[in-house]
Amino acid sequence: MTSSRNLNRFWEWGRKIICVGRNYPDHAKELKNAVPTEPVLFLKPSSAYVTEGSSIMVPFYSHNLHHEVELGVVIGKGGTAIPQNAAMDHVAGYALCLDMTARDVQDECKTKGLPWTLAKAFNTSCPVSEFIPKEKIADPGNVKIWLKVNGQLRQEGNTSQMIFSIPFLISYISEIITLEEGDLILTGTPKGVSSVQEHDELLAGIEGIVSMKFRVDRPQ
Amino acid sequence: MTSSRNLNRFWEWGRKIICVGRNYPDHAKELKNAVPTEPVLFLKPSSAYVTEGSSIMVPFYSHNLHHEVELGVVIGKGGTAIPQNAAMDHVAGYALCLDMTARDVQDECKTKGLPWTLAKAFNTSCPVSEFIPKEKIADPGNVKIWLKVNGQLRQEGNTSQMIFSIPFLISYISEIITLEEGDLILTGTPKGVSSVQEHDELLAGIEGIVSMKFRVDRPQ
Ligand SMILES: [Mg+2]
Ligand SMILES: [Mg+2]
Ligand SMILES: [Mg+2]
Repeated sequence: MTSSRNLNRFWEWGRKIICVGRNYPDHAKELKNAVPTEPVLFLKPSSAYVTEGSSIMVPFYSHNLHHEVELGVVIGKGGTAIPQNAAMDHVAGYALCLDMTARDVQDECKTKGLPWTLAKAFNTSCPVSEFIPKEKIADPGNVKIWLKVNGQLRQEGNTSQMIFSIPFLISYISEIITLEEGDLILTGTPKGVSSVQEHDELLAGIEGIVSMKFRVDRPQ
Repeated sequence: MTSSRNLNRFWEWGRKIICVGRNYPDHAKELKNAVPTEPVLFLKPSSAYVTEGSSIMVPFYSHNLHHEVELGVVIGKGGTAIPQNAAMDHVAGYALCLDMTARDVQDECKTKGLPWTLAKAFNTSCPVSEFIPKEKIADPGNVKIWLKVNGQLRQEGNTSQMIFSIPFLISYISEIITLEEGDLILTGTPKGVSSVQEHDELLAGIEGIVSMKFRVDRPQ
């Protein structure tokens, strides 16, 4: 595969972030949601990206910002209606990601039947690690991801717990939404999501592969 | 303003499509929604773009695809927290757009408190006209937009009926979601939305400025 763009900085030019909700049974349950029979999809805009060295900003309209640590899949070769058995050929690599969520706003959106945009798509709602080339993760369906807030372990899970596998998700999504090089798929979060406050420090990792650190701030 | 990209083909490289729902009182009422006190925002991915010469495809999972004709605003100069009185300096031009909506799926999402992605973000859900340079529309707050299906007038409205003006929307959105060059804002639809079928022909226009034609198809 020849690439005209620098995948090491996919967040600078990638156009789409497609997120999967409720993809770990223990997380679906902790939020009192049914375990889904079909993936729940939502979008973040590329303006949501933030990389280490910059802060996660609490949106001015939220009083309950939650962390969700997730394995991100970076698309290398685009496609439409990609079959499951070819899906991994479309993967360039991975990134550890946070799906920052204004939980209070999301609860209100769910009650009112409104789109989740304000809860999920605000600036800095998608912190990402460095790009992890595909070769560095032999089996993306069996890695441990974790997150600590101020040194305390809050989330820990294994991607083997996912309801919908990465190949299934790539196939399912690409039948509805064409994938392009540089797109990112967030694959859902294990249980343990919780509230973060101004000045908190988030440390997250994929065991043996990568770790990343972000500070939480609030606009003045 | 110097631009490194060709705005005449903004759909080829623009990263975001931000849509405003329920921005015309007569349309909010026809769908039995309350007239909003704050803009309702949702996203389409850039893969949703389709231009004249290609067809609008009915998503395989929908039996009630609706047209919504809307004025689109193309961003020329990006920004965060843009003040209303500077907002028009950030506009490069316009496009006539359709916010194609799987209404059956949207109704289900609203009932279940799910995100609107499947209803709004599928491939070909954002047909766009040619790019209209800013100078060609003296007052974007006072143009007539219309849509015909197979020669029959279905939608007709004036952007003066919008609840939230273009400068207000640019300011409101950019406080939450940073705007970039090439981004598109869909400003909502007037009343008259209705179902389209395979082989229908949609003709839409901004009076005196532009018109566009799309055919509806269904994947085999
Ligand atoms: Mg959405
Ligand atoms: Mg999530
Ligand atoms: Mg609309």
